[in-house]
Amino acid sequence: MTDFDYDFFVIGGGSGGVRAARLAANLGKRVGIAEEFRYGGTCVIRGCVPKKLFVYASHFSEEFEDAAGFGWRVGESHFDWQTLIANKDREVARLEGLYRKGLSNAGAEIFDSRAELVDEHRVRIVSSNQIVTADKILVAVGGRVNGVDTLEGQELTISSNEAFHLERLPKSILIAGGGYIAVEFANIFHGLGVETTLIYRGPEILKNFDMDVRRMLHRTMEEKGIRILCHEVITKVVRSADARLDVTTSGGKNLKVDEVMMALGRVPNTESLGLEDAGVATDEKGAIVVDDYMRTNVENIFAVGDVTDRIQLTPVAIHEAMCVVETLFKDNPTRADHEMVATAVFSQPEIGTVGLSEDAATRKYDELEIYSAAFRPMKHTLSGRQEKMITKLVVNAADRRVVGAHILGPDAGEMAQLLAIALKAGCTKDDFDRTMAVHPTAAEELVTMYQPTYRVKDGVRVE
Amino acid sequence: MTDFDYDFFVIGGGSGGVRAARLAANLGKRVGIAEEFRYGGTCVIRGCVPKKLFVYASHFSEEFEDAAGFGWRVGESHFDWQTLIANKDREVARLEGLYRKGLSNAGAEIFDSRAELVDEHRVRIVSSNQIVTADKILVAVGGRVNGVDTLEGQELTISSNEAFHLERLPKSILIAGGGYIAVEFANIFHGLGVETTLIYRGPEILKNFDMDVRRMLHRTMEEKGIRILCHEVITKVVRSADARLDVTTSGGKNLKVDEVMMALGRVPNTESLGLEDAGVATDEKGAIVVDDYMRTNVENIFAVGDVTDRIQLTPVAIHEAMCVVETLFKDNPTRADHEMVATAVFSQPEIGTVGLSEDAATRKYDELEIYSAAFRPMKHTLSGRQEKMITKLVVNAADRRVVGAHILGPDAGEMAQLLAIALKAGCTKDDFDRTMAVHPTAAEELVTMYQPTYRVKDGVRVE
Repeated sequence: MTDFDYDFFVIGGGSGGVRAARLAANLGKRVGIAEEFRYGGTCVIRGCVPKKLFVYASHFSEEFEDAAGFGWRVGESHFDWQTLIANKDREVARLEGLYRKGLSNAGAEIFDSRAELVDEHRVRIVSSNQIVTADKILVAVGGRVNGVDTLEGQELTISSNEAFHLERLPKSILIAGGGYIAVEFANIFHGLGVETTLIYRGPEILKNFDMDVRRMLHRTMEEKGIRILCHEVITKVVRSADARLDVTTSGGKNLKVDEVMMALGRVPNTESLGLEDAGVATDEKGAIVVDDYMRTNVENIFAVGDVTDRIQLTPVAIHEAMCVVETLFKDNPTRADHEMVATAVFSQPEIGTVGLSEDAATRKYDELEIYSAAFRPMKHTLSGRQEKMITKLVVNAADRRVVGAHILGPDAGEMAQLLAIALKAGCTKDDFDRTMAVHPTAAEELVTMYQPTYRVKDGVRVE
Repeated sequence: MTDFDYDFFVIGGGSGGVRAARLAANLGKRVGIAEEFRYGGTCVIRGCVPKKLFVYASHFSEEFEDAAGFGWRVGESHFDWQTLIANKDREVARLEGLYRKGLSNAGAEIFDSRAELVDEHRVRIVSSNQIVTADKILVAVGGRVNGVDTLEGQELTISSNEAFHLERLPKSILIAGGGYIAVEFANIFHGLGVETTLIYRGPEILKNFDMDVRRMLHRTMEEKGIRILCHEVITKVVRSADARLDVTTSGGKNLKVDEVMMALGRVPNTESLGLEDAGVATDEKGAIVVDDYMRTNVENIFAVGDVTDRIQLTPVAIHEAMCVVETLFKDNPTRADHEMVATAVFSQPEIGTVGLSEDAATRKYDELEIYSAAFRPMKHTLSGRQEKMITKLVVNAADRRVVGAHILGPDAGEMAQLLAIALKAGCTKDDFDRTMAVHPTAAEELVTMYQPTYRVKDGVRVE
């Protein structure tokens, strides 16, 4: 062991890499970690954190409107994009500092450099061309935006990376994609006053989420004024004489917008990483193949997070990192647990979800009880806003387990987090029924839907 | 049975009474219900519902302030109390209409009158002086504000009843009490721009809630600008020459305010109800004594909700009403379940709580693990607001059950509702630990506090 420079070397300073490095260093291991861009990774630098700050920012315009029904007369408001960007950048820098401080306090050695594998125990620090050796190696380099090289005019478009740093707020934007990033940014830009269009190849936004929630969010976004084009893609982007963009779609539409943002998913960040040199196997998408313990085909090399292309979520990467440290340094082989992962879409209204959609549950179980309510949140009885909230439970009739919970509405993400405890623990609908309501809340709907709205038997809805 | 006019007569049209009447009528029973004031009861007419609408209204002033950090410049805002009152009254009337409609659709006969017991099967409809007979009777008359007849100047003060209908928003208010009504109204009036003072006899507001949450809310309210006087009571209220009120306190202070609101609890509404004539026993506070099935000492007379002075919460009254209907009309004797009732205080920030406070758990269990975090909610990293959120779990070390969960912060009520499912089902800290985080949320703190903050052994805190 002591022949190596490090007990543990981590390539990638995102959520997974930093957590693994910090925990291992806290255990007294000699740890090195290298990051080519900024510590904090996608989540902190150009993902979850700045995105959620943008969501907060974009939500104020509705607050100003909603206030009227409660007796407030609000003077004219003006939004300044540069202030938001500056304040967001300051907060991101603060968090990055905390990540670095956590690492150095734990005694990890920090490299501000790209690092690449040379072989199974050697890593090249690219900035200095130095080679370091490590007993165990963790690859946690994450993912990157899926570029669309085939699109004519692709170089005129932006991705979420650039959206966080636009010099000016556009007057209009076209966002391509139907996933959560596309949907969240459509709501953000709309809330900030940008004329927003979403274009998506598929039949309905947010594939794999529960259909009721998808449809209601779609309708609500349209009612707010977001234009949504489904079954359609961008075929060409051209810079027009007035410096705006002319966009042609597969449906034959011509749109003129200030910005085009592509949000067509993310791919593992494994190019030129030396994986072949170290003998680490990847799949056809470039993702590193790992077992339940996050071990690659090379015995001393592990990988966690988006680079493995399983569940692209910060908490999952952190969980996997914690499992790796247990396995490697605490003599406690620990499998990652990817069952019942709750998640949120910070659209407006939000989505919070855990477990199976009705459609997925229909494929898995013979008979379901569906409990579903669509109602106006109390706040909107006075605001006058015509938005509906949805609460929905999917229950396996055979054992009454709640196998899916879906919420569309304010604070749905917070709700999904806490519902996840009950679902993960295998709670039944009877456990929900036994729970006293908290009044007046929206969440009380989830414990007061006593009668099934309908049943699904052998894939067919029955009343 | 058919000798009686009704199978079931309900006295009181609040949450409990209406639910019982409606369910029984839906089962085909001949049901009458009498309400002297307005259907909906305390909750709908002058409690939870209008209160929460006021809370929404009062929260906008902070939204306007918070927006600046996100790049918004908001023009001067002006609050109009009369608009809020009118819109609130309209919504309350709408809900009252829904309650009446639910009753009449179910086939219950509605009396807009006070009703009093004559004997165990006879009820006097006071407005018409008509006597009706019923096989079973439910008393669900609720509670009323605890008057303070001994206070000099008591007639100059208001209660929450009047607070919902003040003709003008006062410039300043003094609120007496330390319970949730006093605390909520202090936050409401402050948020609407009223100079607000809270005065409370005890050492700390919100007796019986977890001490960490009580202290942090107290501090936060003071930092907002609410003056809080503990260990002190009002001794005299006098109308001064300028039509304002001069208040003297036990601490020798003299305060000049526009309104004084007394919020010193509520008492069962049992005066002159004919309980003695029917032989129904009450306790020394006037509350109707009932067994686990809500049955009084008179075999055919039941009572639910605040009139029994057990847990004064709308959902508890509704739950008890549903139990009574099961017991009486569905041949399914059902005890009320008062264990693990979650509740919220709609202060600013909110409190959400379920299960035992640390102090109460210390008295019950030999050893506790306490998991506690105090942090700045993400939104306030940009708003600049110096408010801390608290998440706290109280765990019985012997079996790792989570026996208490306490939250102070935005949406704490929603969170408590869903945590209650897990706690009611007996989930352990391991169930919490196994749950994947949803990022970025505040609720994720509740599933990522992996190490106890401290332990409590035989009543003593140990690290």
